[in-house]
Amino acid sequence: MRTSKYLLSTLKETPNDAEITSHQLMLRAGMIRKLASGLYTWLPTGLRVLRKVENIVREEMNHAGSVETLMPVVQPSELWQETGRWDKFGPELLRIADRHDRSFVLGPTHEEVITDMVRNEVKSYKQLPMNLFQIQTKFRDEVRPRFGVMRSREFIMKDAYSFHLDKASLQETYAEMHKAYCNVFNRMGLDFRPVLADTGSIGGSGSHEFHVLAQSGEDLIASSTDSDYAANIEKAEAVAPQAQADAPTQTMTQVATPNAKTIADLVSQHGIAIEKTVKTLFFKASDAVEAPIVALMVRGDHELNEVKAEHLPEIASPLEMAEEEEIRAIVGAGPGSLGPIGLTVPLIVDRAVAVMSDFGAGANIDGQHYFGINWGRDVELGQVADIRNVVEGDPSPCGHGTLQLTRGIEVGHIFQLGDNYSEKMKATVLGPDGKSQVMQMGCYGIGITRVVAAAIEQNHDKFGIIWPDAIAPFQVAIVPMNMHKSERVKAAAEKLYAELTAAGIDVLFDDRKERPGVMFSDMELIGIPHTIIIGDRSMDEGNFEYKHRRTGEKTPVAMDSIIEHIHSVIA
Amino acid sequence: MRTSKYLLSTLKETPNDAEITSHQLMLRAGMIRKLASGLYTWLPTGLRVLRKVENIVREEMNHAGSVETLMPVVQPSELWQETGRWDKFGPELLRIADRHDRSFVLGPTHEEVITDMVRNEVKSYKQLPMNLFQIQTKFRDEVRPRFGVMRSREFIMKDAYSFHLDKASLQETYAEMHKAYCNVFNRMGLDFRPVLADTGSIGGSGSHEFHVLAQSGEDLIASSTDSDYAANIEKAEAVAPQAQADAPTQTMTQVATPNAKTIADLVSQHGIAIEKTVKTLFFKASDAVEAPIVALMVRGDHELNEVKAEHLPEIASPLEMAEEEEIRAIVGAGPGSLGPIGLTVPLIVDRAVAVMSDFGAGANIDGQHYFGINWGRDVELGQVADIRNVVEGDPSPCGHGTLQLTRGIEVGHIFQLGDNYSEKMKATVLGPDGKSQVMQMGCYGIGITRVVAAAIEQNHDKFGIIWPDAIAPFQVAIVPMNMHKSERVKAAAEKLYAELTAAGIDVLFDDRKERPGVMFSDMELIGIPHTIIIGDRSMDEGNFEYKHRRTGEKTPVAMDSIIEHIHSVIA
Repeated sequence: MRTSKYLLSTLKETPNDAEITSHQLMLRAGMIRKLASGLYTWLPTGLRVLRKVENIVREEMNHAGSVETLMPVVQPSELWQETGRWDKFGPELLRIADRHDRSFVLGPTHEEVITDMVRNEVKSYKQLPMNLFQIQTKFRDEVRPRFGVMRSREFIMKDAYSFHLDKASLQETYAEMHKAYCNVFNRMGLDFRPVLADTGSIGGSGSHEFHVLAQSGEDLIASSTDSDYAANIEKAEAVAPQAQADAPTQTMTQVATPNAKTIADLVSQHGIAIEKTVKTLFFKASDAVEAPIVALMVRGDHELNEVKAEHLPEIASPLEMAEEEEIRAIVGAGPGSLGPIGLTVPLIVDRAVAVMSDFGAGANIDGQHYFGINWGRDVELGQVADIRNVVEGDPSPCGHGTLQLTRGIEVGHIFQLGDNYSEKMKATVLGPDGKSQVMQMGCYGIGITRVVAAAIEQNHDKFGIIWPDAIAPFQVAIVPMNMHKSERVKAAAEKLYAELTAAGIDVLFDDRKERPGVMFSDMELIGIPHTIIIGDRSMDEGNFEYKHRRTGEKTPVAMDSIIEHIHSVIA
Repeated sequence: MRTSKYLLSTLKETPNDAEITSHQLMLRAGMIRKLASGLYTWLPTGLRVLRKVENIVREEMNHAGSVETLMPVVQPSELWQETGRWDKFGPELLRIADRHDRSFVLGPTHEEVITDMVRNEVKSYKQLPMNLFQIQTKFRDEVRPRFGVMRSREFIMKDAYSFHLDKASLQETYAEMHKAYCNVFNRMGLDFRPVLADTGSIGGSGSHEFHVLAQSGEDLIASSTDSDYAANIEKAEAVAPQAQADAPTQTMTQVATPNAKTIADLVSQHGIAIEKTVKTLFFKASDAVEAPIVALMVRGDHELNEVKAEHLPEIASPLEMAEEEEIRAIVGAGPGSLGPIGLTVPLIVDRAVAVMSDFGAGANIDGQHYFGINWGRDVELGQVADIRNVVEGDPSPCGHGTLQLTRGIEVGHIFQLGDNYSEKMKATVLGPDGKSQVMQMGCYGIGITRVVAAAIEQNHDKFGIIWPDAIAPFQVAIVPMNMHKSERVKAAAEKLYAELTAAGIDVLFDDRKERPGVMFSDMELIGIPHTIIIGDRSMDEGNFEYKHRRTGEKTPVAMDSIIEHIHSVIA
């Protein structure tokens, strides 16, 4: 491609409304432009990357035995009513009406459509397992679209769905897809991690997320120092301490703490160690409990894990904190003075809290705490559960090493859905015994557009993007210096461009009448991995100059071995 | 691909609701399934064809210097308001509201979005010409979607847009795109014809449609017997007869014709030749005319061309027939008795009518006609224009040969838009003189999904589809007979499958436990061009059997030269 026939559209200035690096660089490198909130046009440079990502995903899906299909963006509401998601799905599900006032949705995902298709087409267990995928535009009407294509409203996903006679077959395909996903991200040259994940609202029994590691990631990942265990912090188990609670050494004392509204206040004003404090939080109860609210306790230096809390059968889903008035009416005090003593509602304590001794907590009297509390002696130990976020140094649940925390950007997610959808939609096949049987399902997503942004978050420097070779918009840039004055430079550049292109290499030939500095900084901003600089001075010595984007190193390369050199650095 | 791991989904019966051959065969061959009215899921076999069509289009667009982009499906209403199409476009434009109640459309086309993008990114004439394309899902809320993907609501189009400093540059790119389109359809192996077209509601000055020729086509194409002239019948000029009107030989006579309501009645009841009759039709007038209605006259054996009529400045657009009451109030008679004598509203006669003599027409008195009418003597010849459809045998407007009529399916359309959109949207660049100048635009569409259906309309027989090699879902089918009993057949089939696949050929290996007859008819229905049949009997003679789908011929081919044979028939 010649820049003169291309829409380069690089920007010198960082646009004001772009908060994160990838968004800034995608705008500056001329990859995307905003059409409206959460809607982006992919300019040629962006689309080249997108298509490379798409092709790698397609190839690996094919390789893993998934068969490509294509389902409509616009889906009839009836199918969403069958699974109950027409009502359950929030306003992210954009509901529309056609000219005949029939209801449709802009598909944010395709479980309903694929299950409908498979229940119509697949009749016998002999056709199973069946694994189908598509690469398609999706729409999610985010309340606050942000971070460019990282959280846009219209985006491209690869979504695959597998169908099985039994769970064993589902698990087999799930393992194959796990492997295929590793192949995908390895081929893209990304530093990633598959992590255990919560299954969230999609439901099902097993799930992994695939994260591109980047400091700007929204997600925290806990991984073992000594094994390949890794989990989203939402899911990472805080294992039960092996030690028992120490024997009491203090008597329980009521202390006036009128100015201590927070744990930090308590520690600084009353000299109590933070590990000897607890936080007591109240949430709406589920129908499984007679009381309207339930108390949860975590250590003062720990954080409640809301996903774990929401999974407790005693707690209403979605998780909702109790209001102060309600707490006050039942417990007799407000936030800042709450604790386990004299509680009349169910109490669930974190595993770390269960082994505390001589600890302090609110007295359920405003402005008062008890210090020196001990379980059993002073108050019954309630139900014990894992309800906190893990912290660095916690023992790994796998039994090997301790946990460390890193940040990641979720780019893929695989689920064992089980019969969650197939049961509701009566997706059955005839089994070997001739009886109708509900199929087991898996689903497997990759955020194609998101991968592009995540790759940039992981691969950039102050000059711009640093593409891994496999997903670079162009593999090689040719930058001729003063081509419009030097016939020799022009001829060499044209020849090299023709030869590299003929060799099947994606080349951007910067044939603009621009100063070399402008060309260099554009090529760096766009992040082309390999640049060949052609100039009279180096040609006098029989060389071109090769520059490697990631290291920034410049090397003279003999003119007649440049093709060979490029092949070697690309391979 | 092995059928055992594939979703074949062929049907024996023709579904009731499919009217045309391509729709029937796409359902029966397991290419598509209906999700809702005008919404189709592409099953694996259909998608394989779709992707091949898409890739040929992409390659030829790249080759022609068009650069790929990707614009959102969902577009903000503001841009449509700028061009006035928010109001003008009918209910085919699906208008939707997001969660914040902002208005959007599901894009049926992208002129507004691309023009907005280009006016922001392109500042100087030096960046022109610019040619951009995308392959993207579009939505048109058809009132009555039908014929499967031939007229669906959601479909895939390749749409390209070019931007220019002047008309000369636009015409140059237009010619290049014309050539690229010919390359596209030639590569697909389709019998097609580029034809002059009316520019319709999109506007602009020059336009060609690309039609796949098929007897089931909705469009009539007029083409010269002796040149490459071809035009949609909407556009094909009926040239003015060279002869003048003959001198009168009859006197004008009023004749009672109480039972002649139609031209056919007149001919049969009164012995007048149909070429001596005329039809007089009344339409609402435009503001350019003082009268409320205008009369148009065509010969009794000719048809009015509504597109030509609508283009007359005297006629209101969109074309609307005058109501009987209105005609009666002004003319004094109703349909069946209308004619030129004594008319008080403007009269526009077809070129063929202008050279008639001694002809008959309604007397503008119910139940009465005049025979023996002659222009000049009996009534002033009104304005003369080309307002009829051409018929077979008309002289070609190119000056060579006569016209013949064939049927076609429109699969592509190219337009010189001029400044139609760029003027309204103020899409300007700085010209060489430093002054701001509105860009000239062209637009170029190919209905990717439609091509698939059109190819089938042109290429099928009673057994099913006959794919041209370039767009076949699989190039080769391997049909082993009794593989599950014969180890030798199984081994040969597996070996051949591995070898052909390794050679980069798309092979469908029918490894199902089915009777040979079922496998043969499935492969024929799907339309795979080349089938290799492996069976014990032919192997005893050292052969496989090769079958060519189009000719139906079966040829024994020596086992050790089968790969060579396949390469030769594919090439």
